[in-house]
Amino acid sequence: MRTLGLIVEYNPFHNGHLYHIKKAVEMTKPEIIIGVMSGNFVQRGEPSICRKQTKVRSSLDSGLDLIIELPFVFAIQDAGGFASGSITILEKLKTMFLVFGSESNDIESLESISAVLNESSDEYNSLLKKYLKEGLSFPNARKEALKEYLKRKNKNPDIVDKIALSNDILGLEYLKSIKKIHSSIRAFSIKRIGKGYHDLDDDSTYSSATAIREIIKKREFEKLKKLIPLFSYKNLIEDIKKNEGPIFLENLEKTIISILRMNNLKDFEEIYGINEGLHVRMKRAAKTSSDLENFLQTVKTRRFTLTRIKRTLISSILKLDKNTIDESNLYGPQYIRILGFNEKGRNYLATIKKKIDIPMITNISDWPGIYRKILNNKYNARPELFKKQLFYDIKSTELYALFNLKKNLVSGNEFKYNVDYRRN
Amino acid sequence: MRTLGLIVEYNPFHNGHLYHIKKAVEMTKPEIIIGVMSGNFVQRGEPSICRKQTKVRSSLDSGLDLIIELPFVFAIQDAGGFASGSITILEKLKTMFLVFGSESNDIESLESISAVLNESSDEYNSLLKKYLKEGLSFPNARKEALKEYLKRKNKNPDIVDKIALSNDILGLEYLKSIKKIHSSIRAFSIKRIGKGYHDLDDDSTYSSATAIREIIKKREFEKLKKLIPLFSYKNLIEDIKKNEGPIFLENLEKTIISILRMNNLKDFEEIYGINEGLHVRMKRAAKTSSDLENFLQTVKTRRFTLTRIKRTLISSILKLDKNTIDESNLYGPQYIRILGFNEKGRNYLATIKKKIDIPMITNISDWPGIYRKILNNKYNARPELFKKQLFYDIKSTELYALFNLKKNLVSGNEFKYNVDYRRN
Repeated sequence: MRTLGLIVEYNPFHNGHLYHIKKAVEMTKPEIIIGVMSGNFVQRGEPSICRKQTKVRSSLDSGLDLIIELPFVFAIQDAGGFASGSITILEKLKTMFLVFGSESNDIESLESISAVLNESSDEYNSLLKKYLKEGLSFPNARKEALKEYLKRKNKNPDIVDKIALSNDILGLEYLKSIKKIHSSIRAFSIKRIGKGYHDLDDDSTYSSATAIREIIKKREFEKLKKLIPLFSYKNLIEDIKKNEGPIFLENLEKTIISILRMNNLKDFEEIYGINEGLHVRMKRAAKTSSDLENFLQTVKTRRFTLTRIKRTLISSILKLDKNTIDESNLYGPQYIRILGFNEKGRNYLATIKKKIDIPMITNISDWPGIYRKILNNKYNARPELFKKQLFYDIKSTELYALFNLKKNLVSGNEFKYNVDYRRN
Repeated sequence: MRTLGLIVEYNPFHNGHLYHIKKAVEMTKPEIIIGVMSGNFVQRGEPSICRKQTKVRSSLDSGLDLIIELPFVFAIQDAGGFASGSITILEKLKTMFLVFGSESNDIESLESISAVLNESSDEYNSLLKKYLKEGLSFPNARKEALKEYLKRKNKNPDIVDKIALSNDILGLEYLKSIKKIHSSIRAFSIKRIGKGYHDLDDDSTYSSATAIREIIKKREFEKLKKLIPLFSYKNLIEDIKKNEGPIFLENLEKTIISILRMNNLKDFEEIYGINEGLHVRMKRAAKTSSDLENFLQTVKTRRFTLTRIKRTLISSILKLDKNTIDESNLYGPQYIRILGFNEKGRNYLATIKKKIDIPMITNISDWPGIYRKILNNKYNARPELFKKQLFYDIKSTELYALFNLKKNLVSGNEFKYNVDYRRN
């Protein structure tokens, strides 16, 4: 079956996303479209601006047929972990095509660099170490190491400069993951349109998600209307009217700074993202900062980028440990959590269900039964890792829900989540 | 020298406190008055409604000559720990008289019961255990055990009923501590006037501190003016105008619930106040409560009183461990932190300085030098316990300062604290 996979965050769903879907459909003529989507927290280390239920609604409204949650333990990782979790899920769901946005739109260069990275030769690795030692951030060190490596191999190093932006870096990781797990997914890139990710200029119908979030923060809803599809606008506004959003990292400001102030250094030791003294910087900055903006600017260095720091903040608050991440990256996602589907999506799932070797979850309350089946070897999954990954999804909802303006939302009702039946 | 000691919280300083001071002065005709005062957090497990600087100012305005901080590790304990820390400090400061408020004002009964409790016979202890097993809270179990014990000894058990209220319970612990450390402090009680501690009725010039805090919360400043002395009113209002207060437990609501939701059960194991499954109840309630009021009502039982739960919340947030409490109760306060004095207070300190065997701290920045002196046996103090106790004072300020409405107060400037010279 012609299955198209998209790896998305929809934070929030905007015109650029709709354009991406249209283009991808033109390119691959799919019979079914699957979205793998981050849940409560997104890859840039922030809470999702709206609830995952809302993002799912907009996804279905936009034409996607089946939405799967990328488990928190992958969604909060750097590009490598984010990509490997997403690609593995798409592979398990028998995806034929992947279309990803790309600043360079130069898939040949991306493919050749991904091959180099996958070889991960000693020569390349020692170059990488050298640049990290010089204090470069991981993406920059990798860039320099790649260039030097390609030069030594008499290949053109200029292609590295072409793929410096965030979508290209993610694309590179998708290609790496596809190769690594020997997936038959065929990947295509499309040129990203509109402004760059961090560009706050919003004089366009294709503003960046960052610019759109700023507009929502300022409650400039008329402006917002031009930048996101009408269905996405309606879904967002419905939430805002019910006081169920929007949620920004700033909502967690006092909690984050309190926890950092109250933690002892040893409490950080096992936390994912902590190394090279980042926790010492974080502790120190928390003492002298009473707001997040000041905190982030104090911690930031050439080596520790803002996104890296924010991701580490989230994993510190949730006590996400390195061991869980290492195991997850080694063994992949241990379940497929279905967030929503339409009739087509449901039928598709029915046809491939028996071919999927990890459990599918539509209702989290079923977890103990699924866990028992894993113990009885009904699946190719690891029981303890299954529990760990799932519990971080639940825990992240428990934190997320607390910062919702609506009172008494308790723990986000993760156990009452209903899979949507829409657009039948 | 005729030295009067008072053990105070002044949360906030009100007419009842001024009455207490006047009566105590009449009774003991002191040459010098020392107050031992809790700092950022008070014994009922809540943040102090105003900064300790403000409480010190009102104390000096009211006629006290020297104010010492009761270290956090004692201030946050139940009546027993609170009393033993306070009495030890007063004893070290060569205090001659203690005057405490008492609902019963029956010091003979209090003395005789404190004697029974200090004997702590096997017979009494097994009675106590029996009532605790039946699910009574500690104060109630103690009450029943005491009654039965006195009956068996052919003494009148009715005196126990007379000392059921919070000031009597504290008074009892003061007397116990005085006996235990063989102090020569002579204790007197005075009848508490006005409403009970938990009485919210405020139709009096002697309202309870609880009622007064409610009035401040509602910003009914005209009403407030009648209930607290003018100097206290001015000091409070000055803070409020500068956005440096008031602070309520509710300010910490999201932080408290977040931390409880994010903690694993094992994170609670070593926390002071956690036993008999209180952490399991707290975890569970945090998941289903998005506000503190609902949380507290959910956790509360006959055994776990509201105050007990609130104290345990504070120690959970600050990661105050049982071991630090046990050591502190065994070895007492390891320093005397001077929060403020007038000329008289300063002179008094100069005369007794050489007779005090633990370090005096006026400026926290001096701690490393003091620590070194302890290591070199210049004091009768334990170096690691000194650091632990002091660091909890600093840590509690770091938390407290964050919930101040004034931005950029950073860590409460504990290191820039100035001892006040007033009323010279």
